[in-house]
Amino acid sequence: MRVALDALGTDSAPGPEVEGALAALEADHRELTLVLVGDEDQIRAELARHGGRVPTDRLEVIHAPDRILPSESPATAVRRRRDSSIVRGIDLQKSGAVDAFVSAGSTGAVMAGSLIKLRPLAGVDRPAIGTMLPTSKGATLMLDAGANVDCKPRHLHQFALLGQIYAQDSMGVENPRVALLNIGEEAEKGDELALESYELLSRESRLNFIGNVEGRDIIGGRCDVLVCDGFIGNVLLKFYESVAEFIVSLLHDEMERSGTELDLHGTFRVLDYAEYGGAPLLGVNGITIICHGSSPPKAIQNAIGVAVRAVDSRMVTHMAGALAENQASSA
Amino acid sequence: MRVALDALGTDSAPGPEVEGALAALEADHRELTLVLVGDEDQIRAELARHGGRVPTDRLEVIHAPDRILPSESPATAVRRRRDSSIVRGIDLQKSGAVDAFVSAGSTGAVMAGSLIKLRPLAGVDRPAIGTMLPTSKGATLMLDAGANVDCKPRHLHQFALLGQIYAQDSMGVENPRVALLNIGEEAEKGDELALESYELLSRESRLNFIGNVEGRDIIGGRCDVLVCDGFIGNVLLKFYESVAEFIVSLLHDEMERSGTELDLHGTFRVLDYAEYGGAPLLGVNGITIICHGSSPPKAIQNAIGVAVRAVDSRMVTHMAGALAENQASSA
Repeated sequence: MRVALDALGTDSAPGPEVEGALAALEADHRELTLVLVGDEDQIRAELARHGGRVPTDRLEVIHAPDRILPSESPATAVRRRRDSSIVRGIDLQKSGAVDAFVSAGSTGAVMAGSLIKLRPLAGVDRPAIGTMLPTSKGATLMLDAGANVDCKPRHLHQFALLGQIYAQDSMGVENPRVALLNIGEEAEKGDELALESYELLSRESRLNFIGNVEGRDIIGGRCDVLVCDGFIGNVLLKFYESVAEFIVSLLHDEMERSGTELDLHGTFRVLDYAEYGGAPLLGVNGITIICHGSSPPKAIQNAIGVAVRAVDSRMVTHMAGALAENQASSA
Repeated sequence: MRVALDALGTDSAPGPEVEGALAALEADHRELTLVLVGDEDQIRAELARHGGRVPTDRLEVIHAPDRILPSESPATAVRRRRDSSIVRGIDLQKSGAVDAFVSAGSTGAVMAGSLIKLRPLAGVDRPAIGTMLPTSKGATLMLDAGANVDCKPRHLHQFALLGQIYAQDSMGVENPRVALLNIGEEAEKGDELALESYELLSRESRLNFIGNVEGRDIIGGRCDVLVCDGFIGNVLLKFYESVAEFIVSLLHDEMERSGTELDLHGTFRVLDYAEYGGAPLLGVNGITIICHGSSPPKAIQNAIGVAVRAVDSRMVTHMAGALAENQASSA
């Protein structure tokens, strides 16, 4: 298996990428080869710092020194910047030279590139970003986490099918519980989108649809897959990360004040997004994993793991089958 | 000043109501008289337990023994249940016998009753629930927190004007910073509602509109008033409360495991919604304060304080003026 990794992705690239790549290769993936895509000199210099740790037969470097910035228009950048790490990484996948692409670069550009070059699967109107929300009982996959706004009920229906397959294939959940994010538990609660989506989801025999889940129920791990419009998903995800940080800072102040020591790192390990690695872009004809720009090596390593599981489980084939069937039945 | 308090509101009514009422009377509000509305026998029995603490000249009881349950249809219940504490409490305000009404009963019924009997102010299409979100720099007023879904840009514009006045009058903020909840900082980010609302808000000279605020910026206290559709406001509010609870439970486990003691109560005081009391229903011709069904006495006391500040500051008059002006200018 071959996975391309954007080495111009994180805010301090290529350090975290190289360190994360080496850690991923040292983990169990014996058949994994990584292709680092970025500024070759920078990458070689970084690799040299790790000396003997580098398995040269399982690590390739492709020179693509151009970096797309988050401030640029994604679609324009993807069309024009052919020597960018993002465009080259996606092209590698399109040509079949690699099986997946992992990037901590501009989310907009990675998404636009994947949509333009890999194309959505038949039956998918809008691919979605799936993200793992830490809960008291493991993690819940929330989608869409920000790729789409102004979603229609049929989009949420597609997200549910995509999420179900991801939960089965990559999270290892049998018969995943799929829920709709809403402001009440009853079927008649919610806005127009929620009401109509509830209808569609509850009629879908291929889904283990458990109904509505409210904001207060997410953290209890009531469902494996949580479906929502990307606007609210994005707000919720960013809010969650910042609340966790805020609370940890309050605790640090209190520990300092009182001279008490508490293992916050261990306590809040469950809240650490680095544990979950990257967020998959679900519904394209390929495997694209999106990471935070601030990803530490651990997050990069785990994102590579996410890519490997997606390839191994033949996730794209399963999604293509389910969504084509969906398209046929609703046509 | 006279404030009616629903004594059939909380899950363990009338205990928290009586305790909260006495505490409020013992605080500075020398001119405050409270009218407890509920089952008179129950209230008298509860008052008897507090004996000498009860200032009989400043505390009245009105018998309204019927309790509207959260499971009932709000509009139907409000029309039919004239002896309910909620309907009687709102009727007292409508007739001018009291200046405000505080209830921890069915939110739907309190809202429906206020809309039907007090009526929205001229220029307000949909009154909104304002709620205080604890942040690292005090609190941010978020509205709408769940009264309205499928909002239009003009509704968010009205929420912004209402929120601004509440922040000035009741939170004591001069020239409050008003922001729009969105998925990016730039004017061109967001869904249709956000894009059009941004337009409206940035053209509004009477507002100190600071632009978009993302999910990650809420907790930093970037704004005093945060405007959003009630669907996302409701999800966010409930999620926030549950995250704080979850994190405290993780800490309890860790303290037990490690035998360490940390003053969580003090540390997380800032996150305690009881500190902020009730949520005002903004945009009706009257003062209605909504509390959690699980409110402790402290939250009831603070909600009464919220009502007192709203009456004292002549909030309704200010809102009526601003919204009528808004209606005239957009007509």
